[in-house]
Amino acid sequence: MKFKYQRRKVSVGLEGEIYMSNLPGYHLAVMGATGAVGQQILKTLENRDFPIKKLTLLSSARSAGTEIEFKGQKITVQEAVPEAFEGVDIALFSAGGSISEKFAPEAVKRGAIVVDNTSAFRMDPEVPLVVPEVNEEAILKHNGIIANPNCSTIQMVAALEPIRQEYGLKKVIVSTYQAVSGAGAAAINEMKDQATAILNEQEFSPEILPVGGADKHYQIAFNVIPQIDQFAANGYTLEEMKMINETKKIMEMPELKVAATCVRLPVETGHSESVYIELDRNDVKVTDIQQILSVAPGLTVQDEPENQLYPMPAMAAGKEDVFIGRIRKDLDEDTGFHMWIVSDNLIKGAALNTIQIAESLIKLKVVTEK
Amino acid sequence: MKFKYQRRKVSVGLEGEIYMSNLPGYHLAVMGATGAVGQQILKTLENRDFPIKKLTLLSSARSAGTEIEFKGQKITVQEAVPEAFEGVDIALFSAGGSISEKFAPEAVKRGAIVVDNTSAFRMDPEVPLVVPEVNEEAILKHNGIIANPNCSTIQMVAALEPIRQEYGLKKVIVSTYQAVSGAGAAAINEMKDQATAILNEQEFSPEILPVGGADKHYQIAFNVIPQIDQFAANGYTLEEMKMINETKKIMEMPELKVAATCVRLPVETGHSESVYIELDRNDVKVTDIQQILSVAPGLTVQDEPENQLYPMPAMAAGKEDVFIGRIRKDLDEDTGFHMWIVSDNLIKGAALNTIQIAESLIKLKVVTEK
Repeated sequence: MKFKYQRRKVSVGLEGEIYMSNLPGYHLAVMGATGAVGQQILKTLENRDFPIKKLTLLSSARSAGTEIEFKGQKITVQEAVPEAFEGVDIALFSAGGSISEKFAPEAVKRGAIVVDNTSAFRMDPEVPLVVPEVNEEAILKHNGIIANPNCSTIQMVAALEPIRQEYGLKKVIVSTYQAVSGAGAAAINEMKDQATAILNEQEFSPEILPVGGADKHYQIAFNVIPQIDQFAANGYTLEEMKMINETKKIMEMPELKVAATCVRLPVETGHSESVYIELDRNDVKVTDIQQILSVAPGLTVQDEPENQLYPMPAMAAGKEDVFIGRIRKDLDEDTGFHMWIVSDNLIKGAALNTIQIAESLIKLKVVTEK
Repeated sequence: MKFKYQRRKVSVGLEGEIYMSNLPGYHLAVMGATGAVGQQILKTLENRDFPIKKLTLLSSARSAGTEIEFKGQKITVQEAVPEAFEGVDIALFSAGGSISEKFAPEAVKRGAIVVDNTSAFRMDPEVPLVVPEVNEEAILKHNGIIANPNCSTIQMVAALEPIRQEYGLKKVIVSTYQAVSGAGAAAINEMKDQATAILNEQEFSPEILPVGGADKHYQIAFNVIPQIDQFAANGYTLEEMKMINETKKIMEMPELKVAATCVRLPVETGHSESVYIELDRNDVKVTDIQQILSVAPGLTVQDEPENQLYPMPAMAAGKEDVFIGRIRKDLDEDTGFHMWIVSDNLIKGAALNTIQIAESLIKLKVVTEK
């Protein structure tokens, strides 16, 4: 389906935007509406009944023209142009870093607050990087853009923050087990097509993972790839550096020791993380940590080894919470603990956290209803 | 095929044993010949041209009667009985812990040296636990039984020992990414059947993983299970405790700090490990470690981030070496390094190491040719 772009007066609405309600609410724009995360953003907006007065769906030229149903109304996705952000209160960006770099300033210029789910602005000292359960107040320092952290970072800091508040935190070593949906819908299809080919003893040719545009592509079905994103000069991948730097920024602990190894697996949705931490205190028990996490918002403790209860991606997929289990004391370090953290990388890792930031913008009165 | 057991005089040979050669050599018995590891043992014995004079293939009653071809000769697998070990020089056991507990003493009583690839005797202080590249000389302290370590332990200590020798070792934290073949042929079939069912949107019912005989079984295809073996009372799994205790025993370092998180993945063969280590020295460079590992026997360094070269199970499967890559210095600890270790869990992790122990028995003249 090819979309024929036709400019109209804003007052009667561009194609791609629709009035949802006459009640007070916000004019929301979703950039990247047709992508895996964009689709999840729309689903989560519906589920949480976000107060939308007007909804504008935007995408690249390639996907423009797609019809998307939202709360029973069909909306035709519009090709992103700067003028599309006129009158927008909150713009949720999830269409890749270069799109954010190009259009986020245009949206801000027109008075929108951008919640950006790409890595474009995350480490910009002028841009708050926010997981509402951890550092909601950082939103108030915004200059028009608020960054949503990397999926693998969000679930980890959400789980670690209640522990840090109570017992302090000195060190984090994480090894990740990341799902292919983090690399987009094409990576999901690649995994399934490869699995089908292998099960039927047919040939296949890897084309997407580990990174679109990389020199080499590798089998992901029934395999493990220890590369997510490109390599930095220090031998770490950009994904690993994101986890390291974003964790320090969100927790406002530049001195925190963080190490990460990021690994892609043949799982469709749901990132898992094997996390080792060292606390400030040496008198903490496993039950203390279980107790603290079990009452924290957005977290679910699944930790009953005797009943084989622990988090797994197949069970966490489709759910909003971050799940924590396998909590156990290190056998050598009296401040050390191990745990296993799982969450849906498209929900809390992307769409939900983005929308929670938008909800915080409302709660903290950064935006006001029309 | 049902095997009808018929007792004969040993002198004319039991069914299930065959004279391979008139040249000098050893009478070898393989217990568990029909299992995934047993099959790999036979393949590796062929590949390495192990000096076999006589070969006895044994199994449980259930698998007895199976015909197996070895070096062009068909051998009918015999049900294990104590008398089958008469005259055996070396018995390679890989048929589960309870079989080893029952028959290994019988074999030893009859003069055989047992190389046992189960967890039955590994932590027995009277039983050497051997990875020949690490502690070959420990074999000399044997009392009839030598234990082959757990698959996930073998590849890790093989990679760490050359580093320890040069720079000392204080601490190891490992998170594993383990293949289903470690749980046997039935687990491989379960994974493939589940993957086929999921791709075709059909129902399925998990029956084997994480542990045969456990109360609950979980989906492994397109999922991750943070449980291998049963849980110990301290919240660690037995697999994790094996890695911790066996590493200390093999490296003869009871003071070594070791922590492990063991995780099962939908990979057929090839265990991967994300390993963090701390050395005794703080002046070691990545290139030093690459250099040391590249000249160590049985190891292959695959570590060129700029060329996207790193180990992966799909590439390590079927190979004898332990592959190491992603070697990088910790960004906070000046004695700390991270690395990614991959090996075929059925080869170096089981069959090959078992046969290397048998080769060491010959080399160290613990057994002599007939």
